[in-house]
Amino acid sequence: MTIQVFGHKSPDTDSTGSPVAWAWYLSEIRGEDAKPVLLGQPNTEAAFMLERWGIDMPEIVEDVAEGQAVYIVDTNNPAELPASINKADIRGIVDHHKLTGGLETKGPIEIRVEPLACTATILYKMMGKDIAQAPTSVKGAMLTAILSDTLEFRSPTTTQEDEAIAHGLAKDLGVDIKAYAEEMFAAKSDVSAFSDAELLRMDSKEYEVDGTQLRVSVLETTAPSQILDRKEDLKAAMPKVASEDGAHEVLLFVVDILKEEATLIVPNDRVKQIAEASFDVSVDGDTVVLPGVMSRKKQIMPVLKA
Amino acid sequence: MTIQVFGHKSPDTDSTGSPVAWAWYLSEIRGEDAKPVLLGQPNTEAAFMLERWGIDMPEIVEDVAEGQAVYIVDTNNPAELPASINKADIRGIVDHHKLTGGLETKGPIEIRVEPLACTATILYKMMGKDIAQAPTSVKGAMLTAILSDTLEFRSPTTTQEDEAIAHGLAKDLGVDIKAYAEEMFAAKSDVSAFSDAELLRMDSKEYEVDGTQLRVSVLETTAPSQILDRKEDLKAAMPKVASEDGAHEVLLFVVDILKEEATLIVPNDRVKQIAEASFDVSVDGDTVVLPGVMSRKKQIMPVLKA
Repeated sequence: MTIQVFGHKSPDTDSTGSPVAWAWYLSEIRGEDAKPVLLGQPNTEAAFMLERWGIDMPEIVEDVAEGQAVYIVDTNNPAELPASINKADIRGIVDHHKLTGGLETKGPIEIRVEPLACTATILYKMMGKDIAQAPTSVKGAMLTAILSDTLEFRSPTTTQEDEAIAHGLAKDLGVDIKAYAEEMFAAKSDVSAFSDAELLRMDSKEYEVDGTQLRVSVLETTAPSQILDRKEDLKAAMPKVASEDGAHEVLLFVVDILKEEATLIVPNDRVKQIAEASFDVSVDGDTVVLPGVMSRKKQIMPVLKA
Repeated sequence: MTIQVFGHKSPDTDSTGSPVAWAWYLSEIRGEDAKPVLLGQPNTEAAFMLERWGIDMPEIVEDVAEGQAVYIVDTNNPAELPASINKADIRGIVDHHKLTGGLETKGPIEIRVEPLACTATILYKMMGKDIAQAPTSVKGAMLTAILSDTLEFRSPTTTQEDEAIAHGLAKDLGVDIKAYAEEMFAAKSDVSAFSDAELLRMDSKEYEVDGTQLRVSVLETTAPSQILDRKEDLKAAMPKVASEDGAHEVLLFVVDILKEEATLIVPNDRVKQIAEASFDVSVDGDTVVLPGVMSRKKQIMPVLKA
């Protein structure tokens, strides 16, 4: 049976590139039969990566069949995985997020989690010397994933290992990191094709904070005005998205990659209270700028109070 | 704050030796402040190991304080860990069991699970070249843990890596594996000091199988008669142990390490039905011999039907 390698349901660059890289490793180095699949449409940066490195668009699957062999990368959270995930034959997990609980396996499997910025960095370490055999497309996907997750080393999640491995891959590929990251971020910043609801869900995760269900959306961009110009429409779309997704509120953080700050959209009093309680700011109007805030994992989730 | 390194609540040789080895590594190689602790009395083989390699008996702790830094080895099951484990600051997990779910962390941590026979084998791999700096006591603890978990390579859980690493450690230490394993197993087999209830709980795990709560006890021994001679008393103690522990039944498997078979004690009709449904045998009397059965993980748990 072919092992399906996948990330989470909102395929960003890491959740698209890491399955591509790991399916290569499982197939070509470990001699297993594996292929990357996606659990949703890749975001614009991930689509750029596939195009740039000549990688076939992976098949998109909705759910997994009972007994389907799967290898999970970039999440360990059942809420971000297919509904039937615990009926699948989970062969392994490689991730860099907090342990959520809820995934169960029948026997011991390979699990590797490290507090690094990017799953692809962990995969690179696991590949060891075999990375030398990887085709350009695999190396390119891994480099793109690391530059994406670290926001070209700006994010506070960045570690020395992420940075060193990205530099090694870039050198090997003959890629100028600065110029390439600009191209990537331009692709990510072009959100004109997305509806307001799609934008609110694109890079979002659901959390319960103090009994309040929040959809925490983070849009990383080098062109924040492209999103903020749609502020009124986005605010108007929030109640419907929240209600459809079983959340009380949608928190939309627009991260300016170059200025290294986030703008939180504040559609109502409850979000205003959340913002003031969480970020030590006073909110005046329907946006608030949070200097230095770039990482949901490190700077938003740990401080949210509802 | 000192990181407490511990295994599960029924400290066998791996759950005693691996904390000793990993606390050494965290302290001496990674420069952290770590010490091994135990969550209960070590079994006789683990106590033999501590004595044989001149290792101080680790402190035994009942529970963990909120915010206590801990590193968990040899389990990822909250039921086998202190009641307050999810209030602790879990720094890492190294294990070789199935993923149970239920442990949660605030941020991403180091997690490494591999389908190998012994946690110490994984720790050895993680230590890399630094194992050369380990004192004899640490190497001795790791060797003992691997020989214990593999039953001197007889258990079907044994992998080539477990075996190769054990041979490497033995050579390094100048230990004759056959003679040393005999000493270990003799220590494990001397259960004369334990009450019937202690014996039933000593190396046992709780499982729910088809809605039935089972305490599955596995006693590995080279002197099965020492346990089987107490059969009537053990049968009499089972209902009380089961009721105190919230289980419907206690299944006691006496594993004869040398004959490579298990004897299951059958105190009543329900256990008889479980035995016949699970192991394709017909039970006549109050014991049944299961040829080749040595591993709870590989040969008992996957087939149990209640």
